[in-house]
Amino acid sequence: MLKEMAKFGKKLVESGLISSHFGNISVRVSNKMIITKRGAMLDEISDGGVIEIDLETPKSFDMKASIEAIVHREIYRSTSALAVIHAHPPYAVAESLMVKGKSIKPMDCEGLYFLHEIPIVEGEAGSKQLAECVVGALQDRKGVIVRGHGTFAIGKTLEEAYIVTSMIEHSCKVKYLCSMR
Amino acid sequence: MLKEMAKFGKKLVESGLISSHFGNISVRVSNKMIITKRGAMLDEISDGGVIEIDLETPKSFDMKASIEAIVHREIYRSTSALAVIHAHPPYAVAESLMVKGKSIKPMDCEGLYFLHEIPIVEGEAGSKQLAECVVGALQDRKGVIVRGHGTFAIGKTLEEAYIVTSMIEHSCKVKYLCSMR
Amino acid sequence: MLKEMAKFGKKLVESGLISSHFGNISVRVSNKMIITKRGAMLDEISDGGVIEIDLETPKSFDMKASIEAIVHREIYRSTSALAVIHAHPPYAVAESLMVKGKSIKPMDCEGLYFLHEIPIVEGEAGSKQLAECVVGALQDRKGVIVRGHGTFAIGKTLEEAYIVTSMIEHSCKVKYLCSMR
Amino acid sequence: MLKEMAKFGKKLVESGLISSHFGNISVRVSNKMIITKRGAMLDEISDGGVIEIDLETPKSFDMKASIEAIVHREIYRSTSALAVIHAHPPYAVAESLMVKGKSIKPMDCEGLYFLHEIPIVEGEAGSKQLAECVVGALQDRKGVIVRGHGTFAIGKTLEEAYIVTSMIEHSCKVKYLCSMR
Repeated sequence: MLKEMAKFGKKLVESGLISSHFGNISVRVSNKMIITKRGAMLDEISDGGVIEIDLETPKSFDMKASIEAIVHREIYRSTSALAVIHAHPPYAVAESLMVKGKSIKPMDCEGLYFLHEIPIVEGEAGSKQLAECVVGALQDRKGVIVRGHGTFAIGKTLEEAYIVTSMIEHSCKVKYLCSMR
Repeated sequence: MLKEMAKFGKKLVESGLISSHFGNISVRVSNKMIITKRGAMLDEISDGGVIEIDLETPKSFDMKASIEAIVHREIYRSTSALAVIHAHPPYAVAESLMVKGKSIKPMDCEGLYFLHEIPIVEGEAGSKQLAECVVGALQDRKGVIVRGHGTFAIGKTLEEAYIVTSMIEHSCKVKYLCSMR
Repeated sequence: MLKEMAKFGKKLVESGLISSHFGNISVRVSNKMIITKRGAMLDEISDGGVIEIDLETPKSFDMKASIEAIVHREIYRSTSALAVIHAHPPYAVAESLMVKGKSIKPMDCEGLYFLHEIPIVEGEAGSKQLAECVVGALQDRKGVIVRGHGTFAIGKTLEEAYIVTSMIEHSCKVKYLCSMR
Repeated sequence: MLKEMAKFGKKLVESGLISSHFGNISVRVSNKMIITKRGAMLDEISDGGVIEIDLETPKSFDMKASIEAIVHREIYRSTSALAVIHAHPPYAVAESLMVKGKSIKPMDCEGLYFLHEIPIVEGEAGSKQLAECVVGALQDRKGVIVRGHGTFAIGKTLEEAYIVTSMIEHSCKVKYLCSMR
């Protein structure tokens, strides 16, 4: 499991979807989640860089967990996701800041076919309100952009969540490029 | 053969011509083609990630093959290509969405010299109509853009098809940058 | 120590924050600093690529040290920094040239939360005046942009200084992308 | 020597200054030059990927040499260069197409300090006229852009020529970004 997390952490950094420490990934194992620690470098996740959190009992989080742990936990409690990736892809962030509405409609074929539209939600990092908005958007979508902040993407595996993340950035980049002319 | 596929799959991802799973590559071996499976990660192609398809007999495809297998097959049946690369380079996709006409004329010397012009075709992913349009465009060109979708490039080797793919993206990027001022 | 310098030198080049030789990094060890040599390639720092400089005695620098050694030294003398990274990230440089004022306010959440605003200072490379301006700005910030030139970022570790550097570039890229529409 | 060529060929591709096969590099050894072959992939230069050419005798070139061999040869005959890099960096190519004049003046400090201005010349790839224009421009500069085509940069070592190449692209990128607002 750790090997998978390390692999996709590295891919996220190498493909420019995350720079250095900004972002976090988790997987669900039974009624627990394993999530990267606060400030973990995602391209070098190791044993000591993750933490296990019970999905039911904890009222407050271990401070070592990522600040977004609350969002990951609510996703696992309210969807069938087994993996979550939170990234900060630059074109997705920029598009979400420029768009007034509550979603982005891809212009490229894959984005349109697989994502239909990309919902945009709002909320302070690590807040309960953000967790609720993200969970709401993920009821019928695989990925969502938090305005001015980054993406949350889900899947049965980290690979699926990674695909959704890079698809969102690809669609946002193509849309951004087209919008400039 | 698999080693060559793995090598150029990796190059395509590392150079940003494909993100994660979007795209597929194949080679012709006698009257068969070896093509990446549906959803294969192109930067880690292995034995289990490809499938062999007869160019003559199959009416319908093994569902494990890439959805674009029909386009690859028609290319092999109607051209002298021995290798095909389908990629989703962002500037080529964006340019094809912004251009009204049926081709893009490169502004850079190499693009102009080697590609002359880059045809643009239309059609739904995996459709017979798309296969026909792509094959038509490849009668006298080495590469083509499917509007809003991606590129198909051919060669005697994967290396040749890779060169055409990256040349198309380079020409489209230069043209895009110039068009903005 | 050298291993840490080599690691973050490589990361800076791979993530596009520095191209080839432009930039330098240092760490403080007691009353000395270890800094990359003039013209050192940051993605291949070795034993012979760094030089040790006393923070107190030298009036003039060993010519083998980076031309920015004076700025690094003044930072160590006037702040609690234990590591300094000087990079040339393209969006930060471009933004600093286009902005008239003395700071850039990030639009993305992390930039706003962690950096508040990014100060911009001026001064000739390697000059005492530049050193003073940079030190002044770093009294209450972790990073600063020298207009038209590059960034200086500080931390208790190279990792912290690296995070600040990539956060500045991320915020400047998002702001640049948004400013274009 | 081959090891140095392989090293900088790889760096050029990895940093996006060259895509796949477009570009070539050479070094001078006494009265000969060693140059990459026509169509060599620069990120995997090996023994078989280079060719030795006498700087004095050959009237016509071995067809296996790069088409730009004539430019490399004239540079060695008319300057003190011991290494030459020809690359196709996208922002340098785009800027040269948009600028009407015969040079680009960098806006960033390093570009301005080290390059002063970047000359632009014209001429067909592989032509004697192009060779003469490039050689003319390199009498008092370390690098030049061929309009709509790419860069030629020189040095005592491949490292120097590499630095000039990446400095030109950095300056052109910063200038491009600034020109858009």
